[in-house]
Amino acid sequence: MGTRLGDLVERFGGQLAGDPNLEVTGIAPLADAGASHISFLSNSKFRAQAAQSGAAALILTPADDALIGAEYAGARIVTPNPYVYFARAAQYFAALHEMKAPAGIHPSAFVDASAQVDASASIGVHAVIEAGAVIGAGCVIGPGCVVGRDAVIGAGTQLLANVTFHARCVIGQRGIIHSGAVIGTDGFGFANEGGVYIKIPQTGRVVIGDDVDIGANTTIDRGALADTIIEDGVKLDNQIQIGHNCHIGAHTAMAGCVGVAGSAIIGKYCTFGGAAMVLGHLTIADRVHVGSGSMVSRSIAEPGQYTGFYPLAKNADWEKSAAIVRNLSSMREKIRTLEKTIKTLTTQDEK
Amino acid sequence: MGTRLGDLVERFGGQLAGDPNLEVTGIAPLADAGASHISFLSNSKFRAQAAQSGAAALILTPADDALIGAEYAGARIVTPNPYVYFARAAQYFAALHEMKAPAGIHPSAFVDASAQVDASASIGVHAVIEAGAVIGAGCVIGPGCVVGRDAVIGAGTQLLANVTFHARCVIGQRGIIHSGAVIGTDGFGFANEGGVYIKIPQTGRVVIGDDVDIGANTTIDRGALADTIIEDGVKLDNQIQIGHNCHIGAHTAMAGCVGVAGSAIIGKYCTFGGAAMVLGHLTIADRVHVGSGSMVSRSIAEPGQYTGFYPLAKNADWEKSAAIVRNLSSMREKIRTLEKTIKTLTTQDEK
Amino acid sequence: MGTRLGDLVERFGGQLAGDPNLEVTGIAPLADAGASHISFLSNSKFRAQAAQSGAAALILTPADDALIGAEYAGARIVTPNPYVYFARAAQYFAALHEMKAPAGIHPSAFVDASAQVDASASIGVHAVIEAGAVIGAGCVIGPGCVVGRDAVIGAGTQLLANVTFHARCVIGQRGIIHSGAVIGTDGFGFANEGGVYIKIPQTGRVVIGDDVDIGANTTIDRGALADTIIEDGVKLDNQIQIGHNCHIGAHTAMAGCVGVAGSAIIGKYCTFGGAAMVLGHLTIADRVHVGSGSMVSRSIAEPGQYTGFYPLAKNADWEKSAAIVRNLSSMREKIRTLEKTIKTLTTQDEK
Repeated sequence: MGTRLGDLVERFGGQLAGDPNLEVTGIAPLADAGASHISFLSNSKFRAQAAQSGAAALILTPADDALIGAEYAGARIVTPNPYVYFARAAQYFAALHEMKAPAGIHPSAFVDASAQVDASASIGVHAVIEAGAVIGAGCVIGPGCVVGRDAVIGAGTQLLANVTFHARCVIGQRGIIHSGAVIGTDGFGFANEGGVYIKIPQTGRVVIGDDVDIGANTTIDRGALADTIIEDGVKLDNQIQIGHNCHIGAHTAMAGCVGVAGSAIIGKYCTFGGAAMVLGHLTIADRVHVGSGSMVSRSIAEPGQYTGFYPLAKNADWEKSAAIVRNLSSMREKIRTLEKTIKTLTTQDEK
Repeated sequence: MGTRLGDLVERFGGQLAGDPNLEVTGIAPLADAGASHISFLSNSKFRAQAAQSGAAALILTPADDALIGAEYAGARIVTPNPYVYFARAAQYFAALHEMKAPAGIHPSAFVDASAQVDASASIGVHAVIEAGAVIGAGCVIGPGCVVGRDAVIGAGTQLLANVTFHARCVIGQRGIIHSGAVIGTDGFGFANEGGVYIKIPQTGRVVIGDDVDIGANTTIDRGALADTIIEDGVKLDNQIQIGHNCHIGAHTAMAGCVGVAGSAIIGKYCTFGGAAMVLGHLTIADRVHVGSGSMVSRSIAEPGQYTGFYPLAKNADWEKSAAIVRNLSSMREKIRTLEKTIKTLTTQDEK
Repeated sequence: MGTRLGDLVERFGGQLAGDPNLEVTGIAPLADAGASHISFLSNSKFRAQAAQSGAAALILTPADDALIGAEYAGARIVTPNPYVYFARAAQYFAALHEMKAPAGIHPSAFVDASAQVDASASIGVHAVIEAGAVIGAGCVIGPGCVVGRDAVIGAGTQLLANVTFHARCVIGQRGIIHSGAVIGTDGFGFANEGGVYIKIPQTGRVVIGDDVDIGANTTIDRGALADTIIEDGVKLDNQIQIGHNCHIGAHTAMAGCVGVAGSAIIGKYCTFGGAAMVLGHLTIADRVHVGSGSMVSRSIAEPGQYTGFYPLAKNADWEKSAAIVRNLSSMREKIRTLEKTIKTLTTQDEK
């Protein structure tokens, strides 16, 4: 049931030092790997541990191989980016053990007569596919999912369980939407008349590119009039909220609990740490990295790393610093007074 | 398939300057509006754009009309609040195109024999209506929703998809609960005995007024002994958490990711920016406006705008400022020392 | 339909002063309690109110009993921890009125032939139990829940409605998972190759101990290679996100909206206030208490209370203090300059 190292190298590249017929059955971290595992060294600070690893084989960089290759007893696959190699090999091993969802429509599912479901797609138990929806080749629609009227799910995209994908929204190919996510819910749009809110119908869509992952219980609002856009390769973790009319550039990643208010335009290749928040109608450049727990309250034109959270302290120390923060203007006044007094003193001295 | 301007004015008021028989088919923003659209000018800074708009008709204020009415080629509807007019007209156009959920109970739904479902209500695919629940006239209960025992859903209220509305909770008329929301989950109540938590049964309800909107994946806890109360016209965005025994005043609005801890009493006509947090057992006056990402840790007795988040900075700058914030007491000490030294100096000088 | 005080004392202990045959039908707070209720005094500041309470009986400490026992007209149960006594008694009364979910599998549920469902378990309407899953004695699997392949639900554990419990994950006995929670969703793990994310399959599990409560719409990621661990007695409120490979120690409690990034190791008997955030790969000692809205960005080795949020202020005041916070380095420079100048002045004076 193992895989030959030679087969791995044929699939994923890299220079093999060792027996191509050696078989491994899976990937394990350095500390746990045994004689049937391949492991990887992606952080050179674990070099000594890697040299002693009991793994049958090791994925490592040319630089690390030069240093520990001779010392390490097993086979080696040398590649510029062992972590990426690990990811690809892990996908390969996972696919070997994966239970594929069977093609076809489960008898308990409801599929409207006007929906188009590819014969290779799997529609799970109690799933609901509404009128006019299009489910592409190889899609997996999990148990309890609801795909709304005229929605489009691209080939190979999976909806896990209890996902709601609302009417007319679109997702491209090879995406994953985790359980409990809601795509295309109404944006938070109201006109206020004397204190009372009048709902503005949200008639735009959510349009999602290829290779997009959306985390569990994440919510993405449909556009008010235009569309909310999520470009190719975006990765959204769990519990994220994306407001209406946002535009998120390709290959941007957001960690859990991030919130993005309406109409924010976010660049490509950005990252957002957990619980970072972005106010509405801002524009964030490409390659901006926002730290966890940080609030973005102005547009950011320049790439780079941005942070803004109050540092944690023992409660008593925080109480003190917070009290001073509340009165920073008075501290500034005191400094100004000091400066003036000293100016007077030194001027007197000069006289 | 269009609507006469005359019909719009008859329904929603406003002064029409132009042909009442001119037909429009929908609403579009200034930039996109064409000859079949009506558009609106709600922010005077777009006045020049509005004057050049290709829209068949424009909704605008008397003041803006006085300035650009002559210049603009199309018909005009003049009204004090064009944004509210837009909201109402947009609702009207949306209703024309809306697919109404059909009245009746889908054969796949489960409705307990003791539940009361109005004949005009729509119970969707795989929905569950438990014993004793009451579903009012014109309600729409979406696919996968669960309405608990003895719950009451007021006339015209919609639950989209996969909503859970727990036992004995109540919502009034014309509400909307978006997908994945959970109403009436247990509050977080425990007694602690030597470090171990003993659950306190949560036997209160959630009681929600009329015209309340609740966002996707928002959660509202039922009361511990008494009820959690959400008054009329409250608007809650997605991913909000409302703790047990909270009371939220009429026409208060909360943006996405807000959290309100248990037993907070919040006034009417308040607003809370995204990810604002309110501690438990606080009282917030009417017309308090809390900014995004701000933590309310004390009661607020006075209306007004409140804010409290750490300003974002380039990471290196934040590192510096955060290190100083951690040591603000020592900075204050330094200033006190300086003040004393200078007092000594100036006293010496006076001598 | 009432319960004799004598029966309560027999079940839950305490010294009864009064008639053991007196019957009460439920528990109520001091302010609301009438002649058919038992009430409790857990906070001595309400001692005067308790003395006047109309409750048939009162649960109170020996100290409070010494002070008001003679004054209060009803029966008393004297016990060291009235709040814990209240919790236990309230559970007892709640159980009397509870509608037990009927044992057995609802005809609309889907249970794979290879799943093992105990005969005393209740599988609700439209629930899904996948291949190889094990559902223990007395479990309640609510409507719309999905229990994945080879998952294990311990005896007496309840999943409310629309819960997703993914493949191979495990929960112990007497747990509660509230509606919309997702257990065992993929962790957020990617290798980055030239800006493009390559998914790392998440093949670990979530392993949850006994007596664990998980709130509505809370999400817990499965481990990447190893498991995510939630120990016995942990209590998680709603809308919490726990990243992959976290380990949460026994009897730790987290309030709503908390986020814990991947691989954080959190001790026993900790508490986290609402919306607190913990960065990844940190280690938090036992008995650490983190305040609401606080970001934990470094490991914490010492027990105690920690806080870190920007204090709320009127918006205009916040604008001022935030502007100064942004420029704290320049304020520090000014102070340094002042110190130097004064040093020069005083040195001159000394000459």
